[in-house]
Amino acid sequence: MKIAQYSSFGKPFEVVEIVEVDSRELNDEEVRISLELSSINPADLFMIMGAYRIKPSFPAIPGSEGVGKIIERGSNVTNLQIGDRVVIPFYAGVSTWGEEIIIESSKTIQVPLDNKASIQQIAMASINPPSAYYMLTKYEKLEKGDWIIQNAANSAVGSCVIGFAKLLGLKTINIVRREEVLEEVKNLGGDIVLLDGPDLVKRVVKETENAKIKLGLDAVAGDATHRISQCVSDYGTVVNYGAMSMKKCEIGASQVIFKQIKLVGFWYHRWTQTVDQKEFEELTSITNSAIFNGDITVPIHSIHALSDINNALKTSLSGKLNGKVLIKGPAFE
Amino acid sequence: MKIAQYSSFGKPFEVVEIVEVDSRELNDEEVRISLELSSINPADLFMIMGAYRIKPSFPAIPGSEGVGKIIERGSNVTNLQIGDRVVIPFYAGVSTWGEEIIIESSKTIQVPLDNKASIQQIAMASINPPSAYYMLTKYEKLEKGDWIIQNAANSAVGSCVIGFAKLLGLKTINIVRREEVLEEVKNLGGDIVLLDGPDLVKRVVKETENAKIKLGLDAVAGDATHRISQCVSDYGTVVNYGAMSMKKCEIGASQVIFKQIKLVGFWYHRWTQTVDQKEFEELTSITNSAIFNGDITVPIHSIHALSDINNALKTSLSGKLNGKVLIKGPAFE
Repeated sequence: MKIAQYSSFGKPFEVVEIVEVDSRELNDEEVRISLELSSINPADLFMIMGAYRIKPSFPAIPGSEGVGKIIERGSNVTNLQIGDRVVIPFYAGVSTWGEEIIIESSKTIQVPLDNKASIQQIAMASINPPSAYYMLTKYEKLEKGDWIIQNAANSAVGSCVIGFAKLLGLKTINIVRREEVLEEVKNLGGDIVLLDGPDLVKRVVKETENAKIKLGLDAVAGDATHRISQCVSDYGTVVNYGAMSMKKCEIGASQVIFKQIKLVGFWYHRWTQTVDQKEFEELTSITNSAIFNGDITVPIHSIHALSDINNALKTSLSGKLNGKVLIKGPAFE
Repeated sequence: MKIAQYSSFGKPFEVVEIVEVDSRELNDEEVRISLELSSINPADLFMIMGAYRIKPSFPAIPGSEGVGKIIERGSNVTNLQIGDRVVIPFYAGVSTWGEEIIIESSKTIQVPLDNKASIQQIAMASINPPSAYYMLTKYEKLEKGDWIIQNAANSAVGSCVIGFAKLLGLKTINIVRREEVLEEVKNLGGDIVLLDGPDLVKRVVKETENAKIKLGLDAVAGDATHRISQCVSDYGTVVNYGAMSMKKCEIGASQVIFKQIKLVGFWYHRWTQTVDQKEFEELTSITNSAIFNGDITVPIHSIHALSDINNALKTSLSGKLNGKVLIKGPAFE
């Protein structure tokens, strides 16, 4: 069977290659999954470039989540049948860019038969949606009707933030950096959608009628962090979870000193490693339900065959995506 | 009597002038103090420049703290005698750059007769020492032997941090921006004293043998914030309390995301406005005792007569101080 693989850090579309490997036999608790779809996340790209906090050992197989169909099961597996559709979640720690994935059955999430989501949305269920939900609920105590602000609003996490904010009764101010995505973010249900710029805070004050904004989400860094902090009210929190500008977070001392804004970072990987098990199960149950109910929509930019991985990676890194880039496996119909 | 006064925002040495005003009569609870010494703090300068969060009404008298002698008391004042030396603390909200200061007797702090501190140290008792103590004790739970790191180590707050760290059994890594102050900070008791620079984190790792550092204090901002964050260990806190570089705080997304460093701001003024009264009294009692015991030493750059206020302000703004600039009043001997 074919898998994607890399043996040195570098530009993902240069170092990742498709190789043929032998399938191994299953242990009693494992299932073999034929891949339908897997996602390309920024963390996958950083990992391949060697810019991630965690370094893999070589040769490494990329990919962090996906969805597929059971094609074989170990002798002790009784909860899943051949043909069942399951999510291979991020926290299982299994590489997903391959035709077949072997995983302990207990680590999969069975997709309910009555689910209302597209297979694309299910393929992206385990990283961005819980990240968005966690950031919306764990840093500030928000009530129905409260406003939050985010940049990179057209990103996958940004789209999930809009979806979960609606479920939670929160209102969103959505900042984007390209005019051509304004409409798309409005269509996703963003209450206010604005182009980033030096006078952002003035426009936010006007559009919200000077509403209190306790929480700001920042995936851009650079002076975009500062502009988010200008919009957040005294004692509020700015959560940085990415640096699309490739710059450091900048935030005025007057924001942190006079306004007492806190800047904190969110890293889903570390959270899954350190969170209390019960809290984790509660959160993933909420976000999985929202996915399966079709409440969350992340736009899709393109879907590539596993054999076309290099184009998929090039597209991912182009910087002007209109949604997620996905990889399809043999079970995708 | 003479007071310093300004009626518009601007360069402090241009807008502040000495004017003659009538003394008013005391209320029953008040005392009249003849000024010995008052401090010039960065907040005073920012206030005069109109760059502080709080704007005064004009004409405004600057000055936030000082020490002096009682020369008259209201009919209900029994706790203080004529000739007693008292601190006029910041939190009393009384302007101190004048020959005489009127204040409710209950808001003063009587200097004990057996105090071991110089009058200069007492004049600076109520802003920088509690700021230093608060930052050392309230953001991270530190144990004896733990390391902290700070920049602007030769500043008044920096000197207080060194003094309180010694009392608390903490070890300090002190970063300065000028070679000529290295020795001075060592003499104050700084355990490690280093010149700031791009390779700071490497030198700190080497000097401390890779010690865990939970807390970083930053008064410089710009990329100095980032270097402090590089030295702080996973899950640690960077507290910004000033922006001597006049730049925004910069902190790498990898520091906040992967290392989970928090960036928060400390503003003594807001803390005094919002803190629980009991906690405030406990803290000021500890810091006042340390001052009166002579445990805290802040270097003095120069002492100017009130009539020489413009030179005092020019000196304050010169950017290359070797300590605090003080203003002396008629009771200074």
